Amino acid sequence: MDETPERRLAEFVAATEYDDLPADAPATVTRAVVDTVGVALAGAVEGAGATAARSAGLDPEAADAATLLGVDGDGDPAATALRVGTAAHALDYDDLSWALDGHPSVTLLPPLFALADGADASGRDLATAFAVGFEVECALAGPISPDHYEAGWHATATFGAFGATAAAASLLDLDAEATERALAVAASTPSGAKRNFGSMTKPLHAGLCSRSGVTAATLARDGITAARDAVSGDRGFWDLYDPDPGRTAADRRDAFAFDPDGPWAVETEGIHAKAYPCCYFTHTAVAATAAIVDDGVDPEGIERIEVRAAGGAGDALAYPDPETGLEAKFSMEHAVACAAVRDRVDLAAFEAGALEDPAVDAVRERVEFAVEQSLPYDSHESTVRIVTADGTTRERRRVDPPGVHDDPLPPETRRRKFLECAERAVDPETAERLYDRLTDLPELPDVAATLAGRDSRTDLP
Amino acid sequence: MDETPERRLAEFVAATEYDDLPADAPATVTRAVVDTVGVALAGAVEGAGATAARSAGLDPEAADAATLLGVDGDGDPAATALRVGTAAHALDYDDLSWALDGHPSVTLLPPLFALADGADASGRDLATAFAVGFEVECALAGPISPDHYEAGWHATATFGAFGATAAAASLLDLDAEATERALAVAASTPSGAKRNFGSMTKPLHAGLCSRSGVTAATLARDGITAARDAVSGDRGFWDLYDPDPGRTAADRRDAFAFDPDGPWAVETEGIHAKAYPCCYFTHTAVAATAAIVDDGVDPEGIERIEVRAAGGAGDALAYPDPETGLEAKFSMEHAVACAAVRDRVDLAAFEAGALEDPAVDAVRERVEFAVEQSLPYDSHESTVRIVTADGTTRERRRVDPPGVHDDPLPPETRRRKFLECAERAVDPETAERLYDRLTDLPELPDVAATLAGRDSRTDLP
Repeated sequence: MDETPERRLAEFVAATEYDDLPADAPATVTRAVVDTVGVALAGAVEGAGATAARSAGLDPEAADAATLLGVDGDGDPAATALRVGTAAHALDYDDLSWALDGHPSVTLLPPLFALADGADASGRDLATAFAVGFEVECALAGPISPDHYEAGWHATATFGAFGATAAAASLLDLDAEATERALAVAASTPSGAKRNFGSMTKPLHAGLCSRSGVTAATLARDGITAARDAVSGDRGFWDLYDPDPGRTAADRRDAFAFDPDGPWAVETEGIHAKAYPCCYFTHTAVAATAAIVDDGVDPEGIERIEVRAAGGAGDALAYPDPETGLEAKFSMEHAVACAAVRDRVDLAAFEAGALEDPAVDAVRERVEFAVEQSLPYDSHESTVRIVTADGTTRERRRVDPPGVHDDPLPPETRRRKFLECAERAVDPETAERLYDRLTDLPELPDVAATLAGRDSRTDLP
Repeated sequence: MDETPERRLAEFVAATEYDDLPADAPATVTRAVVDTVGVALAGAVEGAGATAARSAGLDPEAADAATLLGVDGDGDPAATALRVGTAAHALDYDDLSWALDGHPSVTLLPPLFALADGADASGRDLATAFAVGFEVECALAGPISPDHYEAGWHATATFGAFGATAAAASLLDLDAEATERALAVAASTPSGAKRNFGSMTKPLHAGLCSRSGVTAATLARDGITAARDAVSGDRGFWDLYDPDPGRTAADRRDAFAFDPDGPWAVETEGIHAKAYPCCYFTHTAVAATAAIVDDGVDPEGIERIEVRAAGGAGDALAYPDPETGLEAKFSMEHAVACAAVRDRVDLAAFEAGALEDPAVDAVRERVEFAVEQSLPYDSHESTVRIVTADGTTRERRRVDPPGVHDDPLPPETRRRKFLECAERAVDPETAERLYDRLTDLPELPDVAATLAGRDSRTDLP
């Protein structure tokens, strides 16, 4: 038979080395790793992340960075990937890619961290594994997206199971044959219902697929067998998880656009970092509001803030008057009010102090959020108009959220986000050290040692 | 809102105690536990089971019974459930129930064994947890079965995730509220593609759902949140995993027939033990052949064996001239030839000695297997006609495989199967001891201690 999609991907994963990555990929991956380490540390000490840690027998408040990140080499790597993946997605502050309708890094980095110590992984090993994992999950998403996500599957987790597996297979240095078996095992693991969105089980999905990736790759290494067409064959992954009954196996194989020699998804689609720890549909409005206010508006003089955004934003942002931090993350009114009143829309903006802040409350009541029907449903564009007491009207339209792949957040903003997050879990000195080292990811000889603080500057090449 | 299916099941699981079980349930569960321990021991030292053990860092050949069964209290219970579930299903010699189109015990016992030591579980605790887990998986299977299985999902694993979770929740003594959250977490875990049948990934599915059950129950115990309608709600489990687009959420809720006060599935549907370690579609023909030969047929005088069975058997049994043990398990010709020639159709009948045995080969070539179109597709009935060299024709029809719930295998047959299996992994004395103790399951004060050989006869009440 023709080379299967599974085989093409397996050969790509097994053959790709660091020097094969597209020119910009190391920088993209390094940004993603830094961002994900920050949010994983913050997520490890509260909510779903802390729950997963406690279930694993850890006290997240007492654990050091290496333990929280799962690079200490203790315990079963699959169990480690579960809790680290859950922590990384716990705050919904982690990055996104439209190529898989979801959050890539929380499915790629946790399995790699869980295996890094055992694999003596260098920064280049890790970057390579991350990059091929991303390509695999995007490639397998294509033929059944966006219908798969829209039907109710949490695409982060379902496609993420393959990304996690491919990344783990790369780090474990599996050959093409074993990688093919690993991907076939992964085809028997995808799960994650969007019905559980709004609960701690949403971030757990990232942990579950991270764990599946470790399991599939390690079992493949140890000899497990699986069907060669477990993804593309009759009643394989694509068939079972494609909600469109009109699409055939042949259609999906035709739609499988993966070409290792063509431009990679990490170039064409990229990875978008989140500038604010709230629903992505608020981000353009938050940025536009902050820009208007920074131009010289006194928040106390705000009469009215009119926000117009797409239908997707209208459906997702259901809490005009939020009572909890989680509700506040899905409140256009709260996010925009924070953008007007606070210096930054940071983690604290969705915690009790900000929720109960009379200044935020006063502006929140003056936000008028409406759906702009002329925008495509899933557009992130928004227009913000601020009317002040002196009768002045200022308006800004913003198309892309800050931090999209083609226009990354500036280094100082990335650093501030990292430190804000990391300092939730570790001391400021450790946070600074981690940031400085991780921004040199491709130069690190031993990622686990670096994250554990076992290296020193002089070890670096 | 009305009480949800999830809530009804959670209250049932949390409220049920040993004395609430139907009168015959302890005997049914005890038989299932004994049978599953046997096949799990045999499965732990070869194929998928041995692979899973090695991936967990164990040498299955050197491990003792307590380790192989996962009751030694070492390691992460979720990881333990993965390898024990895989081992238990590795030989496809474990029990079945039509109520979930699959294999119940390999989804129920591994999570319970993994948690038994930590929970100080008695035999009654374990029997109770097993029984409620079985009811839950059967109840959730009903509204989307048999379409779900027929569409390509491995129902053992998908429904098994809920059974494993309910069983674990019972053993951990979760209250109804926590059990409800555990079941909602489980709704984000089901997976398992029949595309992977015929490979080691099939038994892995039982391990994966066993692991999911441990994870869901322990996270629920530790406070994870999830959607209350994650099974029955819009785009919940039933919706995502129901291949019938014509069936609505209301239809499925109407079809949810669970009634804690009505007869239980363990009574009405029961659990069927396998008498032979091969495809269930061969079992009536094997039994009929053995019965004819036992009546006084010399195998060397067999001219021809004609076997007629249903369409399902015709589709499943694709290897008239098998070359491997796995193929032989799906060969009507081989199974019937073994029934005619060998004393028993046991594990050895599907290994090299039997595959290469000229006496088996001679009869296998004389088996003529045909589909009887008048039978329902999934019927297990078969008719065997043996023609001998002296011109005599003997015929037997058999409707049910030996070992069905309503007509269990006799104790001596169960014991022989257990010892044959267990002695693959442990010494004969240990195998005998385990059999003797486990047949007293409801009287055991500490299941883990018994399986580890830490108790003695005098400890028993």
